Amino acid sequence: MMTDIEIAQSAKMKPIYEVAEGLGISEEYIEPYGKYKAKLSDGLMDSLQDHPDGKLILVTAINPTPAGEGKTTISVGLGEAMQQIGKKAVIALREPSLGPVFGIKGGAAGGGYAQVVPMEDINLHFTGDMHAITAANNLLCAVIDNHLQQGNELGIDQRRILFKRCMDMNDRALRFVTVGLGGKVNGIPREDGFQITVASEIMAILCLASDIHDLKKRLGNILVAYTYDNRPVFARDLGVHGAMAALMKDAVKPNLVQTLENTPAIMHGGPFANIAHGCNSVKATKLALKLGDYVVTEAGFGSDLGAEKFLDIKCRYAGLKPNCIVIVATIRALKYNGGVAKADLAEENVEALKLGVKNLQVHVQNMQKYGVPVVVAINRFFTDTDAEIQVLSDCCDALGCDFALAEVFAKGGLGGTELAEKVVAACEKPSDFHVLYDHELPIKEKVGTIAKEIYRADGVVYTAAAEKEIAEIEKLGLDRLPVCIAKTQYSLSDDQTKLGAPTGFDITVRNVKVSAGAGFIVVYTGNIMTMPGLPKAPAALKIDIDETGEIVGLF
Amino acid sequence: MMTDIEIAQSAKMKPIYEVAEGLGISEEYIEPYGKYKAKLSDGLMDSLQDHPDGKLILVTAINPTPAGEGKTTISVGLGEAMQQIGKKAVIALREPSLGPVFGIKGGAAGGGYAQVVPMEDINLHFTGDMHAITAANNLLCAVIDNHLQQGNELGIDQRRILFKRCMDMNDRALRFVTVGLGGKVNGIPREDGFQITVASEIMAILCLASDIHDLKKRLGNILVAYTYDNRPVFARDLGVHGAMAALMKDAVKPNLVQTLENTPAIMHGGPFANIAHGCNSVKATKLALKLGDYVVTEAGFGSDLGAEKFLDIKCRYAGLKPNCIVIVATIRALKYNGGVAKADLAEENVEALKLGVKNLQVHVQNMQKYGVPVVVAINRFFTDTDAEIQVLSDCCDALGCDFALAEVFAKGGLGGTELAEKVVAACEKPSDFHVLYDHELPIKEKVGTIAKEIYRADGVVYTAAAEKEIAEIEKLGLDRLPVCIAKTQYSLSDDQTKLGAPTGFDITVRNVKVSAGAGFIVVYTGNIMTMPGLPKAPAALKIDIDETGEIVGLF
Repeated sequence: MMTDIEIAQSAKMKPIYEVAEGLGISEEYIEPYGKYKAKLSDGLMDSLQDHPDGKLILVTAINPTPAGEGKTTISVGLGEAMQQIGKKAVIALREPSLGPVFGIKGGAAGGGYAQVVPMEDINLHFTGDMHAITAANNLLCAVIDNHLQQGNELGIDQRRILFKRCMDMNDRALRFVTVGLGGKVNGIPREDGFQITVASEIMAILCLASDIHDLKKRLGNILVAYTYDNRPVFARDLGVHGAMAALMKDAVKPNLVQTLENTPAIMHGGPFANIAHGCNSVKATKLALKLGDYVVTEAGFGSDLGAEKFLDIKCRYAGLKPNCIVIVATIRALKYNGGVAKADLAEENVEALKLGVKNLQVHVQNMQKYGVPVVVAINRFFTDTDAEIQVLSDCCDALGCDFALAEVFAKGGLGGTELAEKVVAACEKPSDFHVLYDHELPIKEKVGTIAKEIYRADGVVYTAAAEKEIAEIEKLGLDRLPVCIAKTQYSLSDDQTKLGAPTGFDITVRNVKVSAGAGFIVVYTGNIMTMPGLPKAPAALKIDIDETGEIVGLF
Repeated sequence: MMTDIEIAQSAKMKPIYEVAEGLGISEEYIEPYGKYKAKLSDGLMDSLQDHPDGKLILVTAINPTPAGEGKTTISVGLGEAMQQIGKKAVIALREPSLGPVFGIKGGAAGGGYAQVVPMEDINLHFTGDMHAITAANNLLCAVIDNHLQQGNELGIDQRRILFKRCMDMNDRALRFVTVGLGGKVNGIPREDGFQITVASEIMAILCLASDIHDLKKRLGNILVAYTYDNRPVFARDLGVHGAMAALMKDAVKPNLVQTLENTPAIMHGGPFANIAHGCNSVKATKLALKLGDYVVTEAGFGSDLGAEKFLDIKCRYAGLKPNCIVIVATIRALKYNGGVAKADLAEENVEALKLGVKNLQVHVQNMQKYGVPVVVAINRFFTDTDAEIQVLSDCCDALGCDFALAEVFAKGGLGGTELAEKVVAACEKPSDFHVLYDHELPIKEKVGTIAKEIYRADGVVYTAAAEKEIAEIEKLGLDRLPVCIAKTQYSLSDDQTKLGAPTGFDITVRNVKVSAGAGFIVVYTGNIMTMPGLPKAPAALKIDIDETGEIVGLF
């Protein structure tokens, strides 16, 4: 069997100008990065203002398990399948982070015959968006420390600097550091830490900004510190948001690539789905809607995290109205949710599946609450049995949602035509999309609504620290923003060991912080790691250049 | 008067494919980055193996002064002037570092009407080479710290880790840091520091590597640490050099841009000229020699640092033979060398100039020692008087070198035709290039030769630390490499206050370290700052995006 990188390297890619031409994009709007990647210039969107929007399809999933669900693979395969059945489809995805490539994960551009290419480029530096975010982030940090060093006119309390440095690397040794050591000429000593670049608030800002001017404004709104007398300090107070925006002049433009079957894919931005909203940029999605009749996009983790934020944060800010939500599951993952050990997932187990399917039920019902038609996509494994498939089919019937098997990993678009047909049909159904809560409500009411409606919790408990932080945010007048709940992705609850459809639990809110630039309030229900580490044998040790100069071992 | 960025933004750039076509480069070898930048693929050099090499012209300078010399401006203007007089010229330059753009310096792509464009792109992320170096550097660091954390099989002494993290930013607070704080799961605490990316050994490696395989080998040769029992640890011992090379797959390819007059310019790499060798990549220079009849290249700081290293390190490794050396000076800078205060440089002062010109004399004589014809280029200011110009002319006559005034800042290529004619004539003269010393000699003999022949020192004094370090390098068998002396750029001596042509001094060597990957021994004659800081009012505060989305305030 060929590895993902071998399949990707044997792809027959079209020159990116040809891919663009297929979408009716004229050459003047293409900024090529090599022969197979391009940025789409701002003029393109302006030129398309009068085009009608295509249908918007969100791909989300059940809670992730070690068994794997393949959400990106389904997203890519669904786009390819749309093309196979004669539809003009565009895929809108997050771009992968460089850091994890060298850890456990390898790349993140789909898998098997449902991949986005050129895979090595996309997984390494791509068009430099991550590097631009890193640079803008660290420029702000350098200016903060320089402000301290040059007299600290604003009176910034070095113990209360909220904004951290970042690096696009899995590097645990940078989680907790002290900077500014070495005496008078080398800065003011203080505690600091690095996040991985995708966890930077600037990534969330990039993904929510409507244009470069909105980006600059949001960058200026980042709350970076408090002063000794407890006043907030924003990036704009340091006067550095203009230079940060200049660094992101190109990063703010969506990137065009293609799938193995030459389906156009716009990959742009990729924030965490816990401390941030977990989906590609607003600019990319809006552009894709002007270019395609069907736009397939995805959100991170399960629907309780990624989809909820896609709907309640991104769609709210951008005025988007999804026409269909696809929920990806595998029979293996649902059996895992039903209590089967990872080693035993290959064996038929209908009883365990009937238990585990409750996780899927909650995700389907949750998404139906938003007023959008739901289709369940089963990413098929060769170990799935007919009896197991029947359980899924019955479950979906009872829920009133459509259901399709997909074999896009092994077969590409041809393995997803049934799914594509059902999604097209769902898009014709009436959609009555509405967000879940009014963002003008008090923070606790917003959190309570999500906890009850999505997580199915009995209630929400707040620590003393969280209560104090909420009061502070209210005092700053920044509480009338959507909430972004940082919770474990492995359970509907805030306890990662509770699989299936847990009941009879409270959610505990430990901290509440405001991402004032991005425009949401981050509600922490546990410790969220924002700088991964490398494992004992990192993937970096396998990645190499072979004698012909090609990259090997990326997967 | 228009600012540099205003001139640059009003340039009539040719599409990069057209610039390439003018050099006979077919489309297949072009990897575009936007419309006006491209990487040149490896196949191009292979296709040109049978082409004869053009003439190689090195632009260097007197010791830099606060009055400014404009070496890059002359290099760019000379290339443009070559084109004006009908020669097929290619300019080969270093690419600027992003960090200093936000400090005092602004951009670094020439000035006035002798600039390389697109200026904003080149000064910001360009084609991502700096970011690739940063990522490769920091991957190695993450793997070192991960090795410590995962059991430290090699027995690395965390007090003797030589390889530092890097960032392309002026950020003094990162000079001295502690990493790995926060308890057991967050790494092994140790002292560390960040250098600016251009100071990373990986930058020097990029610039000396003949191809991606040589790059990988050199990356593996980086000496990263010592063990508790005093054995050396190289990057190859950690198995990470393949992944580092994969990260630099595109960075190793030279970049093609153009001047304001559409003269082709290959910009690639840009190491420091003190702790490293200070000139663009070997790959760029060799490719330029195949593409142009005349190649204008430059080296950092004055000829005592940049040119000496260009000749003794780069030309030695790459087998290059320069045909002409251009030494740039200004009458203002020479008067400053003669003792005139910066505020008084606009006034005629023939006597001070006669004193200061001794600095130029030493630089000319030094370069003549390499057996290459020398031309002095005076970067003309409107305050220069005829009497002053006569002093320069007489001086050059006495030295047996040619002399030309250049006004390329104000007039572009047309302001440099006299210089171009003289350089073309010099290239026809016999050149008998040879390096200054045999690299197989002991370290002290190599240092002694440079100190005597170039700096004109009486002798060299070694600190106890330096003696010990030399013995260690000899024990490792790494002493048979060229030396790279890190010295103040402001004086021919190691005391930055000694202007003109100082005599009667010793050079003090404080430390000696080996850049085993780059392939040279760094000899420190003082403290060299490898992470700049930001000034009180950083340039970042002026850089902005205007209402049309254009970058302003970059200069």
